[in-house]
This record gives sequence, C-alpha cells and structure tokens, in this order.
Amino acid sequence: MSDPVQRLVDQLEIRELTARYNRAFDDGDAEAYAATFVPDGEMHATGVPNTVGRDALKELVRLTPYGIVHITTDPVIEIDGDRAIQRCTLIVANRHEDRSAVQFGTTGRYEDELVRTPDGWRFKKRVAVLDGDVAQQAAQEAAQ
Amino acid sequence: MSDPVQRLVDQLEIRELTARYNRAFDDGDAEAYAATFVPDGEMHATGVPNTVGRDALKELVRLTPYGIVHITTDPVIEIDGDRAIQRCTLIVANRHEDRSAVQFGTTGRYEDELVRTPDGWRFKKRVAVLDGDVAQQAAQEAAQ
Amino acid sequence: MSDPVQRLVDQLEIRELTARYNRAFDDGDAEAYAATFVPDGEMHATGVPNTVGRDALKELVRLTPYGIVHITTDPVIEIDGDRAIQRCTLIVANRHEDRSAVQFGTTGRYEDELVRTPDGWRFKKRVAVLDGDVAQQAAQEAAQ
Repeated sequence: MSDPVQRLVDQLEIRELTARYNRAFDDGDAEAYAATFVPDGEMHATGVPNTVGRDALKELVRLTPYGIVHITTDPVIEIDGDRAIQRCTLIVANRHEDRSAVQFGTTGRYEDELVRTPDGWRFKKRVAVLDGDVAQQAAQEAAQ
Repeated sequence: MSDPVQRLVDQLEIRELTARYNRAFDDGDAEAYAATFVPDGEMHATGVPNTVGRDALKELVRLTPYGIVHITTDPVIEIDGDRAIQRCTLIVANRHEDRSAVQFGTTGRYEDELVRTPDGWRFKKRVAVLDGDVAQQAAQEAAQ
Repeated sequence: MSDPVQRLVDQLEIRELTARYNRAFDDGDAEAYAATFVPDGEMHATGVPNTVGRDALKELVRLTPYGIVHITTDPVIEIDGDRAIQRCTLIVANRHEDRSAVQFGTTGRYEDELVRTPDGWRFKKRVAVLDGDVAQQAAQEAAQ
C-alpha cells in the first residue's frame, strides 16, 4: 500500500478500536474492553485512580454499575510509524435498566497513545479529561 | 482500485448514507429518506411497528411531527463484497419550531444491513435499539 | 495519488480541520481558531452578527466567555477540485470552570464552504444554523 492509503487505513482502524472500546465498556464486556489495550495498557480518568494492565482493566468494567454510555467524536489522529496519538471528544450519557429517561452526563476529551501490534492498533494509554465532576453531579441529582 | 482503497471508499459512502438518512428524516423529506433504503427496505425501532418498503417508509416520515434530531457516531462497518453490516451509536434530541430549548432525548444503537446497488450503498434493514423509552419520557415531561 | 485516494485524503483533512476548529474555539485559542479560515474567512451563526476576516475571528474568540463545547458529527463533504462544501451536525454543550454539571445546549447544522490552500484546506465561510435560541435558553435558566 502507498503511504497515503496506509495512513487512511490506520486512521480507520483506530476509529473502529475507539468505537469498540465504547461498546465493550457500556455492555460490561470486560474481556473485549481489556483487549483494546496492550497487556500493560493504562487508563487514566479525572477523579478516578489509574488503572494499569489488563487484569485491572477487566476489574474496572466488572465493578462499574450498568448505565454509562460512551460516545466519541471529532478525532484528530497523528501517526508516526507504529505509534499514534489520538485526541477526540467524549460525551457521557446515563441510561437505566428500566429504560426510564436517559440523562446527558458530561463532555470531555480523550488523549490517547496507541501502538501498532501484530493484531492491529491497541491503546497504550488513555487519559480522559472530564468537563463535569461526575461524582458531584450524581450527588446533586440524588439530593433532588 | 486496490482492495484497501475500495474498503475505504465503501466505508465513506456508508457513513454519508447514514448522515443523509438523519437529515432526510429530520427535515421531513420523505422521498430522500425512502431513497436511502432498497425498495423492500425495513426499519425496525424499539416500541414502534416495523416499517417495510419505500411507500411505508415515506408514510413514516410524513406522519412524524417536527422535532426529532438524529445524530450518529462511532460506526463499525464490516464489508463482505456487496453486503455490509454497520453498528453505530445514536443520539436523539428534540427541537421545536419556535426555537425554544432543545432537549437531549435518548441514546441508542443502530444495527444495519446494507447492500451495494448500481446507485451506491442502500439500507436493507435498520434496527434501532433505543436506551430510553421515548413514549414514557414524553408522558413524564407532559405531566410536569 | 489516484483520484479516489485524493478524495479520501481531502475528506480526512476537512474532518480534522473541523475538529481543530471545535477545540481551538472551546480552549479560547484565538490564533488557532482564526487559522482554520482563509484570511478573509467568514463565520455566520443564527442570532449573531457576521464575523469577517481573521482579526475579527480572533476577537470573537477573545470576547466569548469560557464554557462552550462544540461537537460535530455526520459530515457529508462534496469536493470539486480546490473547493468543497461540508454539511455536518453540531451539538453545543455548556461546561463550567468549577466543573459543576455540564448542560446539553442545542443542536444545529453547519453549512461550510472550504478552499484548498498551499497549507491545506481552510474554511472560506461557515454558516451555523442553531435549532435552539441560545440567548432565550440562557435567560430561562437564569430565571429559574
């Protein structure tokens, strides 16, 4: 493949990896979620302890109650050989098992480091910077 | 075109078809909406009777009051020759003709079957799984 | 590059320009924002005076208080040589410096004219059509 085509294919694969990450987390699929990272991958998010390595990443999914919906948009991806940086925008919504009204949660941004592996692109490190304090917001809603 | 380029072009065309679907529905453009499907195309959505064929699809648009805004993100598209499967995330918002405040509605997911036709990719079947019960939510808001 | 590849590269560059526009505005980065336009570029938005030229575009960013989050989705891009038209969907959210709850603001659409310059694609003119009257909505919230 010529270079521009390789760049386009890499972009698409990283976009699909990000979409799969969203759905794996939201479906509580711990195995599929952890598989979007390299074995020593790291997840950092505002106000949450860092999660390092696939076992801890699986545990993160298992311990999170049902309801988060991850939505990502507006990616800018810079590829340098077998490494890449992605910046994208995040929307978080909250759904409920009884299908009552879904709430808009917060916006934020991901800053991602990725590496190309024999199985395709994987996250090396994701940092989610959330615009709203999700814990504070949950407390406000509970108090209403 | 080489295979990776064909795959990229197919992906882009399916993304644009999906964007056109959103705007045709939201603008009440029944012809343009129905034209995103094959003649015997099907639309299924949580809590709504199935809609089959272009005449019924046009009627669906004509009977829907103004206000729905369809937004789609995070596509994962698998192409197999002249057939494709798309999974993407849906946000529904509600706008008003008097331009009063727009409401966040619900999130959901599309699971789509597509076919390549001489005129480009078309939906064979869309299934929209909505996270919130839209009818229940409208009733709650009306009661406030 | 063959024509389909050039079209795909153009599409990607226009998508990244749009993502950079969103983040430059939201971060209050007046220089980076103005640089997404050609020198005589124009920004039009519902209910706001038109902004013409890079100096005025920088001033627009400097005068806007912190808090707007621009999110864009569902692009349809038509390229004709060194000119392009983009239609995409806009979500506006409102965030706060104290990280209190982020609000869903409004939806809308961009209609964009772009030109290819020696430095890449730039906006010639953006027209943002907002579904909700943002000024009216802010007044309602302040009155609660």
